Amino acid sequence: MDKIRFLEPRADIVARREEIRTGLANVVPADCLVTDERELVPFETDAFTAYRRVPLAVVLPETTEQVAAVMKYCTDNGVPVVPRGAGTSLAGGAIPQEDAVVIGVSRMSCILEVDYENRTARVQAGVTNLRISDEVSADGFFYAPDPSSQLACTIGGNIGMNSGGAHCLKYGVTTNNLLGVTMVLQDGTVIELGGKALDAEGYDLLGLVCGSEGQLGIVTEATVRLIAKPEGARPVLFGFDSSEVAGACVADIIGAGIIPVAIEFMDKPAIDICEAFAHAGYPMDVEALLIVEVEGSEDEMDAMLSRIIAIARKHNVKRVRESQSAIEAAQIWKGRKSAFGATGRVADYICMDGTVPLGQLSHVLRETANIVEKYGLRVANVFHAGDGNMHPLILYNVNDPEEAEKAEAAGAEILKLCVDAGGCLTGEHGVGIEKRDLMLHQFTETDLNQQMAVRAAFDPGWLLNPSKVFPLDLDMRKAG
Amino acid sequence: MDKIRFLEPRADIVARREEIRTGLANVVPADCLVTDERELVPFETDAFTAYRRVPLAVVLPETTEQVAAVMKYCTDNGVPVVPRGAGTSLAGGAIPQEDAVVIGVSRMSCILEVDYENRTARVQAGVTNLRISDEVSADGFFYAPDPSSQLACTIGGNIGMNSGGAHCLKYGVTTNNLLGVTMVLQDGTVIELGGKALDAEGYDLLGLVCGSEGQLGIVTEATVRLIAKPEGARPVLFGFDSSEVAGACVADIIGAGIIPVAIEFMDKPAIDICEAFAHAGYPMDVEALLIVEVEGSEDEMDAMLSRIIAIARKHNVKRVRESQSAIEAAQIWKGRKSAFGATGRVADYICMDGTVPLGQLSHVLRETANIVEKYGLRVANVFHAGDGNMHPLILYNVNDPEEAEKAEAAGAEILKLCVDAGGCLTGEHGVGIEKRDLMLHQFTETDLNQQMAVRAAFDPGWLLNPSKVFPLDLDMRKAG
Repeated sequence: MDKIRFLEPRADIVARREEIRTGLANVVPADCLVTDERELVPFETDAFTAYRRVPLAVVLPETTEQVAAVMKYCTDNGVPVVPRGAGTSLAGGAIPQEDAVVIGVSRMSCILEVDYENRTARVQAGVTNLRISDEVSADGFFYAPDPSSQLACTIGGNIGMNSGGAHCLKYGVTTNNLLGVTMVLQDGTVIELGGKALDAEGYDLLGLVCGSEGQLGIVTEATVRLIAKPEGARPVLFGFDSSEVAGACVADIIGAGIIPVAIEFMDKPAIDICEAFAHAGYPMDVEALLIVEVEGSEDEMDAMLSRIIAIARKHNVKRVRESQSAIEAAQIWKGRKSAFGATGRVADYICMDGTVPLGQLSHVLRETANIVEKYGLRVANVFHAGDGNMHPLILYNVNDPEEAEKAEAAGAEILKLCVDAGGCLTGEHGVGIEKRDLMLHQFTETDLNQQMAVRAAFDPGWLLNPSKVFPLDLDMRKAG
Repeated sequence: MDKIRFLEPRADIVARREEIRTGLANVVPADCLVTDERELVPFETDAFTAYRRVPLAVVLPETTEQVAAVMKYCTDNGVPVVPRGAGTSLAGGAIPQEDAVVIGVSRMSCILEVDYENRTARVQAGVTNLRISDEVSADGFFYAPDPSSQLACTIGGNIGMNSGGAHCLKYGVTTNNLLGVTMVLQDGTVIELGGKALDAEGYDLLGLVCGSEGQLGIVTEATVRLIAKPEGARPVLFGFDSSEVAGACVADIIGAGIIPVAIEFMDKPAIDICEAFAHAGYPMDVEALLIVEVEGSEDEMDAMLSRIIAIARKHNVKRVRESQSAIEAAQIWKGRKSAFGATGRVADYICMDGTVPLGQLSHVLRETANIVEKYGLRVANVFHAGDGNMHPLILYNVNDPEEAEKAEAAGAEILKLCVDAGGCLTGEHGVGIEKRDLMLHQFTETDLNQQMAVRAAFDPGWLLNPSKVFPLDLDMRKAG
């Protein structure tokens, strides 16, 4: 897995390393600045791979003003900036480079305001995802997007990647739950986008910023929507004889207009791995499993479930099991949410993140199996089926260079398959460096030129999170 | 009402009028081109005001390729373009200028595909809003955003203005129901944004386009989400002794985490006008009325209503009346949806469109009354209260220039009040020319410069729907 090209650090920047570190020390307090080589180590990669690049410096500001001062300094001195939340990115979106300053928002971790009357919370960008729900849980509310990394990942990072999660089928992803941000532009200008009111006049710059992977500015504060907790929630397991049939069942549930709060999919390898880890009580005699969660009053859940079960019966469902208690429900979700970690205990893997129209689920599952078999590798599928957001985990041995190369090639083929089926390269993990060069399979060069023109309207110096998102050759042309 | 400044048509364009008309005739079929002065009349204004400007020519293309050909011609010749749906804009977004070519999408009215498995429909931009729901109604689906003009307005126009409607409280506005578009850029390039899959990689250009008032390109096709019709729906009337109390009740319903499908508000003047027109059976002994619609199974509706009624009782609700039949329900909605038309029969009016955080509803209603009283005018309030999207209708006599000027001044004060309360200038009608110069009350010049930089990334020649959205002085600087 050494195919990803990194840019050579710019010699002029590296030569001025000490001068830049001193310059930064002049604009932020000493305890916000990391320049010691050993202390820089925790910032040298993210959750994507083992690639490591030690940044020129790391700044951990505590205020928007400090972020603005650093951004202005970096722009004035032509220094690239890599924004960072908790570094849980799965696509290399937070990997630094040697000639860049990392601005990490982890210390900006205050919940600034909870406003139930307007159902909003205003938080600093370094607040972790789960902490918002924890803060308002006793009052009956929660923050909906729930990435598996929600214990660690920050709202700032969630905004950068437009993060999703298992329960986004009903509640939407980050962009659907974000009402406003404070953002620092490349030159240090601070702008406000959105607010507590729904909608806003003018262009939807807030939506544009969400999912822009830190290339348009650095978000320092966010206003998010709070949602009332449902009266009750009940996950139900549906076991099928094949992945294709399970996929067709998902399409039929959604096609009937039913929106459960989550429909998660696991194939046999994923069931085996997760059951061994979490003892969730998954049925072991099926080839594919759906976790369908419904919520509401007991009556509402019963009514929705009876319709879902009727559809599953048409697809010859083999096992149907409702959770009988809160503990059982928690175990079912523990199995699903620990899938990546549990897989990591039995094999190395790369996780794909393609999203497809639901009508194509069965086809893409079948072809994914064919592709992986062609390369002599194994795959485990565990994903957000209701959204069509697939996560094939391609299992391989990281110490076998040949196998690593095959895994990467299989992954690229699978993503192209998703695009050809009318889908796209990423549902929630972002493009980062991982899918950068595949963007030309999704978009024409005309499309990408338009996206780069929009970026240049925010980042004329092409300094923010460089060499991510866009194919490296196009990016280098822009960067001059 | 003659305060709005129009740009002088550019003499160089007007001088080349016949040459440009001939040039257009060379790139589109004769029956798509309107140049006869009498035939241009229907295109000289929109639903905003009586301002009239006859455009240089109107093109009514039937294909994306024809739109592209016209856009390329106009760019090559430096001719401004004004995109148009059905001309139902309430903010002057579709008013032409004498030196501009109008591209109207009304003839692009085919429903291209209905795909229940993916719950999507793909339509041409000229398809009317209600037609999508009509097309899929028998199969149990509908398209959610429901502007009052839904019988006439087009999806292309809805996308331009990010249109909402009474039922958007639960289902969101256009941007929440739009999955993809085909769009022609200023130079004739055709790009695809989004598709059938949820989410997409790269920047959210689809969200950016939605609500951009035709300044980033011309949308020719759209993929929209279909939603299953609920089992049942029931509007309930709640009458209160004052507008402030009704406003506080709305904030408490939403603050409790309850999301009905609609919460509509009418004050006494609006009740009187609508009841006289629609005979909806509204209670006449109250000062403010909420129409709260719940949907789902009978049990679900009962459960939600009992919670809502309990909250209303805390606010000393005076009348509670559930609709007892489908006919009664239809009458209740007919009264609300005809509010603008019914008001137009008793007085001239201008309709504001500010949106405020729900906690500010009571305050803004009270201050709105004070402002209008100060000018010696009357106001009727009828609006989407659950969204905080206010529509004060300022009543005046269009033939009395002094009153017209007062109405406009009162409107501007009300919109500033909304902004100062943490809200914004427009919820769903757009900025157009109406609120163009008020944008500086909402945004700093820095904010607007950033928005204009984004526009320039799509429209470097500053030719698309010129002198709309941005304050005229800033706009003219850009237009050079």
